[in-house]
Amino acid sequence: MLILREAFAGVRRFDDFQRDLGIARNVLQTRLSRLVDEGILERVPYQERPVRHEYRLTEKGLDLWPILIAMLAWGDKYAAAAGPPLLLVHRDCGGRMNDRRMCERCGAELTVRDVLADVPAPSVA
Amino acid sequence: MLILREAFAGVRRFDDFQRDLGIARNVLQTRLSRLVDEGILERVPYQERPVRHEYRLTEKGLDLWPILIAMLAWGDKYAAAAGPPLLLVHRDCGGRMNDRRMCERCGAELTVRDVLADVPAPSVA
Repeated sequence: MLILREAFAGVRRFDDFQRDLGIARNVLQTRLSRLVDEGILERVPYQERPVRHEYRLTEKGLDLWPILIAMLAWGDKYAAAAGPPLLLVHRDCGGRMNDRRMCERCGAELTVRDVLADVPAPSVA
Repeated sequence: MLILREAFAGVRRFDDFQRDLGIARNVLQTRLSRLVDEGILERVPYQERPVRHEYRLTEKGLDLWPILIAMLAWGDKYAAAAGPPLLLVHRDCGGRMNDRRMCERCGAELTVRDVLADVPAPSVA
């Protein structure tokens, strides 16, 4: 699940997953391979000589987004000490996304491609 | 997760969980106790002499419902061989609930308390 959260945040490369998650390389490799086997990630070359691969969410993987959003909402309610760590906003109008994945400003039904993460600005003392 | 699915389907008693899930009693007991410790289920006496307890979803547990709905939708799309096994309908108007937990007929935003499971009638040959 943590790997998927990273993938939805735009992480694609092995070393970036490894740096962000801080888990052993062999454990990470096993988990990434399993997600590829399940058709949730795909391994795509991004460079030749030497060939290097990155991991991208497939359509089946992108369809896990509503589950992550629901888990995020539950976590914000029961586990976040200092308010939600991340606001998700509608790319087109800037409205906040609610937990039904709809824009609170314009009412649009949002998909993973319509949403940006907005890190709240630190308050000025 | 399977225990929670049962709980959302109305199962409350140890023997009913055990019968439906077919897992060893000690494994079931460990998992139920963990859900109680996490505040997701509560253990409530339903009979005296002898005292017997049942397991009910707490508010925190009921708030897991959107996650289950999102998992159900994903499972229906990628794992259901013969169409969705279960339709969820709005108790008040009979409309189907969509995967944003809204009624497709009247547009209401639905919660776990507004929804009934509707088992599709077998087709007559």
